[in-house]
Parts: sequence; structure tokens; C-alpha cells
Amino acid sequence: MSTTQKKRIAFLGAGNVAWHMAPALAAAGHEVTAIYSRSAASRETLARLLPQAQPLATPDLRTAEVDVVIISVPDAALANVAAALQVAPGTLVVHTSGSQPLTLLQPVQGARTGVLYPLQTFSKTKPVGLAEVPLLVEALDEDTLQQVEALAKSISRQVYSVKPEARKQLHLAAVFACNFTNHLLGISRQLLQEAHLPVALLQPLLQETIAKAAQQHPFAVQTGPAVRGDENVLQAHLHMLQQHPRYQELYRQLSRSIQATAGQTGSEATEG
Amino acid sequence: MSTTQKKRIAFLGAGNVAWHMAPALAAAGHEVTAIYSRSAASRETLARLLPQAQPLATPDLRTAEVDVVIISVPDAALANVAAALQVAPGTLVVHTSGSQPLTLLQPVQGARTGVLYPLQTFSKTKPVGLAEVPLLVEALDEDTLQQVEALAKSISRQVYSVKPEARKQLHLAAVFACNFTNHLLGISRQLLQEAHLPVALLQPLLQETIAKAAQQHPFAVQTGPAVRGDENVLQAHLHMLQQHPRYQELYRQLSRSIQATAGQTGSEATEG
Repeated sequence: MSTTQKKRIAFLGAGNVAWHMAPALAAAGHEVTAIYSRSAASRETLARLLPQAQPLATPDLRTAEVDVVIISVPDAALANVAAALQVAPGTLVVHTSGSQPLTLLQPVQGARTGVLYPLQTFSKTKPVGLAEVPLLVEALDEDTLQQVEALAKSISRQVYSVKPEARKQLHLAAVFACNFTNHLLGISRQLLQEAHLPVALLQPLLQETIAKAAQQHPFAVQTGPAVRGDENVLQAHLHMLQQHPRYQELYRQLSRSIQATAGQTGSEATEG
Repeated sequence: MSTTQKKRIAFLGAGNVAWHMAPALAAAGHEVTAIYSRSAASRETLARLLPQAQPLATPDLRTAEVDVVIISVPDAALANVAAALQVAPGTLVVHTSGSQPLTLLQPVQGARTGVLYPLQTFSKTKPVGLAEVPLLVEALDEDTLQQVEALAKSISRQVYSVKPEARKQLHLAAVFACNFTNHLLGISRQLLQEAHLPVALLQPLLQETIAKAAQQHPFAVQTGPAVRGDENVLQAHLHMLQQHPRYQELYRQLSRSIQATAGQTGSEATEG
């Protein structure tokens, strides 16, 4: 992380992203001066954690002496929040969305606009060290990009400038690797609980699966009954899932996709 | 791991499981005396790693002075291998399958039979420490169970005696948590590669997803566009996947399942 050029920063949104990013920016020497959220409880709770921050009930920052506005609201709310936001000319306004275009910030009059997308999953209940979280940055011109990069580098060692299309594709890849994987882990945990098995049992297997995927292409090290073409086991598993038709359908689809991929890449059926 | 009562052990099968388990047993003080595999190359390669082991071309161990036979062949081959195996009376014969019943070993005349299922994914190219790998053991009677347990405890600190139904359910849970997750990681990697993005980018996100899943029920911490009901992003992602109809279908199904689960468990839509 680079030495910090101190900025005065306002957040629009007091959700999970703001909850982790605002304290990290304050710890890096910036001044988080304002937290706007429609929810009075949310803006007040987060503002209380940041000694210099005021909770704001309206996104009007024209006279607020703010250098940077970070919009971290749900994707679906981003357009409306951008349309309501008012800033002094030259203010840097960034959003933190992985999937939304920079152009959504065009309605913010007089602003320089950019994207600062943290590639991480945040919950309020679990601390996350931002220093190793990849931050993807984007802007329309080189000068603005440097400003966004400087801000990003003040809290993370992993800052990448990406093209809009690449950021969207990265977000899509993250949905598969994180959101969908999490759902499968939830199903797996439910199955363990139904058999009164300790949920920690699968942890070493999971760690190894992730570690292996970092070293080799997962398609090349695929294991399990689907890639082995073990039809008896596939049928037995589908039978065991008959109380869970949704999981049964996922099992069928994922197994088919594994088999089709093995056909394409020539992965060997291996014991696992 | 407990102190070892030295056994003379033969392996039927020279695949990934034997490749890791045979050296671990030898290191624990047992004598691995024979490796049978239909493939001459496989049995000779593995036997070369084990100073006391002979490669065997037929599974006839009647005069081989062997205490334990470990059958680690693909599930689909297990019945045939068991039918061909011949042992001296009282030999302990176990298989290492997560999904196959103990009764598959009934054709082995005169044997005591059991299951020794390592809950881990193995590749020949990647070393795995067995000491923390959960080993699931099963047998028909208490005396045999103690023998299988003693063998398991000589190489792992995590030995669990389970009922047949629980072992099958555990295997099914492992397919979701490991095999299916691996497939999603493969898709994710392919998407990164298509956008010329470094594949390591998603590693912190993935680590955090796994760490979180160990602490809380994954359904309770689900993030992403599906659980947020962010229809614009879902549609944009489906559009981006139009060159990959198989992944598109998985995206659709997994998103639907996430939404149906959130409806059941009342998971909150959170920013992620």
C-alpha cells in the first residue's frame, strides 16, 4: 500500500461494503466525513464507528467539503442514488459495483467518475483484511484513473485497472466461484445435518479442493462419480435426493455438465 | 494417531487412493507387501515406491501371508474385483469407497470385511497429509470394527465409525461440496481466461467464502445477484453466457435454487 494522500470521503450506502471499506479508509489516514443511507439506523450505526463522520439524511454534498464520494448501494438502487446525488464540481464519485457500468454515474453533474470494485464477499459480522483484497478500478480518463488508483492503493496491495467488459466478466466468474459455490456448500451442510454428521467433516476435503484449483485447471483434476461415468452411484444419489427435488435437478445438471466438459477437454476419469 | 500394531497389507488397485494410502501405511510402520492392478505399469510403478511390495498380476492372496487387503478400485469395478479376490481365512478385507455397501465384499470367502473411506480428494501429482484426513470406518461386528479402526488410527487423527446410511449421505454431501464446487471453479477459471484476467484474482474471495461457510450456515450468508433479486444483473449475466448454453442453464438453475432457499430460510438479501 502506498503512502496516503489524505482525502475527505463521503459514503452513500451503509451496507456490508461501506461497513468494511469506510473503517479501512479511516485507518489509512483519510477522513470519512459523511455517511448517507435511507435507513436512519444504518447511517447512524456506521457513523458512530467513524469519529469524523456525520450521518446524512439526503445525498446533497454540494457544500460538504468532500473530495470523494463512494456509492456502495445495491446494484438495483445505483441509478436512483446517482440521480439524487449532488456534489461540488470536480468531486470524484465512484461506485463499488462489479456489474454496473461507469455510465450510470453520468447524471452526477460536475463530477469525475470511476469504479472501485472490491472483489470480496463481506458480512458485517466477520472482519476482512482489505489489504489483500483485489480492488478493480476504472475511469474514463487517465487523470481520474490515477486518483481512483491512489485511493485504492491506500487500502490494498492488490489494485488492478480493468476494462469495463473485463470487470463484468470477472463479476460473472465470481458469481460461479463464490455465490454458487456457497449455495452448494449450504446444500452439503444440510445433507450432513440430516444424517446427524458433524459439519466440520468436509472441511479438509474442501480446503484441498480449493488448493488444487489454485494450482491446476479444475477441469483437469475433476473427480467423482459423474466424471467416472459411474451410473450406479449417480442413480443412487438421485434416489437419496428424492425428498429434495430442487437439489436432485441441480445434481442432474451439474453431473451432465461435468460429463460434457470431460468430453471436450479429454479429462481422464480418475478415482476420487 | 495411535501406536501401530504392525500389519502386512496388500492393495488391490494402484490408483490415486492407493498412491497416497500405501506410503502412509508404510510410514506408520506397516509392511505393504503386494500391489495388485490390472495395469502392469500402475502396479509396478507403485510397488517401486514401496521397498517391501511385490507387483501382483492376479488377486490371489491365499498363500501371501497378508493380514489386511485394501481394495481401492473404481466403484464400478469393486464387485468384480471382490469376486476375483482369494484370501486366507480370517484376513481383513476393506474397501475405500464412499458410496458402495460393505455387502459387496460378501463374495470374499473366509474374510472379515469392512470399509475404510478416506474423505479426501487425491491426485498423484499433489501430496496430501493423511493425518488430518477424516477416515470413515465400518464393519459388521465389533471385533472387526476395532481392527479397521486400529488400522485407520495408525495413519489419521480423524477416525469416525459411521452407519452405512450416514456414510452414503456423507459421500453425497461431498459430491456437492467438492466435485460440483470444483466444476464451478473450472467454469469460473474459463471465464477469467476468456477475459485475459489472472486466475489468481478470485483466490481471496474463494478463501473467504470457504472460511465463512465453516463458521455460519452458508444459506444464512448467501450473497450475490440471485439472493438480492437483482433481475437486471441476472439477465445481463445470462446474456454474457450465450456462447455457453450449458453454463447458462446452470446459472439459471443455481440462481433459482438460491432464491427458493432464501424464501424458505428467510435469508436476508445482503450486499455482496
